[in-house]
Amino acid sequence: MDEFMQAAIEEAEQGLREGGVPIGSVIMHEGEIIGRGHNMRQQQGSAILHGEMSALENAGRQPASVYRNSVLYTTLSPCPMCSGAIRLYQIPRVIIGENQTFLGDEELLKASGVELEVLQDQRCIDLMNQFIAAHPDVWNEDIGE
Amino acid sequence: MDEFMQAAIEEAEQGLREGGVPIGSVIMHEGEIIGRGHNMRQQQGSAILHGEMSALENAGRQPASVYRNSVLYTTLSPCPMCSGAIRLYQIPRVIIGENQTFLGDEELLKASGVELEVLQDQRCIDLMNQFIAAHPDVWNEDIGE
Repeated sequence: MDEFMQAAIEEAEQGLREGGVPIGSVIMHEGEIIGRGHNMRQQQGSAILHGEMSALENAGRQPASVYRNSVLYTTLSPCPMCSGAIRLYQIPRVIIGENQTFLGDEELLKASGVELEVLQDQRCIDLMNQFIAAHPDVWNEDIGE
Repeated sequence: MDEFMQAAIEEAEQGLREGGVPIGSVIMHEGEIIGRGHNMRQQQGSAILHGEMSALENAGRQPASVYRNSVLYTTLSPCPMCSGAIRLYQIPRVIIGENQTFLGDEELLKASGVELEVLQDQRCIDLMNQFIAAHPDVWNEDIGE
């Protein structure tokens, strides 16, 4: 595993320690992390700060050229909102920790020309299974169910 | 025009007064506004706080049942990110001020079962034309172009 998915997992683990949904994300541009974050539903009462959205917000305002040469790493398959953000900014490549506990908008991303790689990483799977078992209500809220 | 689109336009106008992208949104649930906001790219250096996202964040954490009985009003056709958020939370109906200055993910929303109504309101069109002429760089950044 490269350092970027490792950083995304560390974000997810930090979220879990905070009592939050353990999903983390980083955005890599030219070999550097330009944005990182984790789900903030519990911590900030946020309906929009999924892991990927937190990473985008942390990266701040960027020109289109930066997004179009970036890779987004996320510990979990991106939901429709986060997939929409990836499509808006035309991020060309997304590395996904796992899609066993939740399958997001991967087909739409692929149809939009986004290159996906799914790692099925056991640490990512375990983080989600642990959280979903303990807080099914929070998890359902996070995915609009 | 009903009071809800009127409130969304007031949000857009407030954004313009702040020097920001003039797009506003409100979320209506059972006849009451439960969330409202406007684009905060300029004001907060935000890459994710489009008008609709600001309204969702302002509404705070809500159960799925609230979103599924809400109407989202937005002064401009929702971009892929905001359309993704609408799809995530399964908001069933979206009232759009105009889609002449920017056409968002309306086909995807319709294919997802979301009911759309486009007003082509001249105030909404004028707000966008005024801003785009004055700040084309900011506008392009906001839509990932």
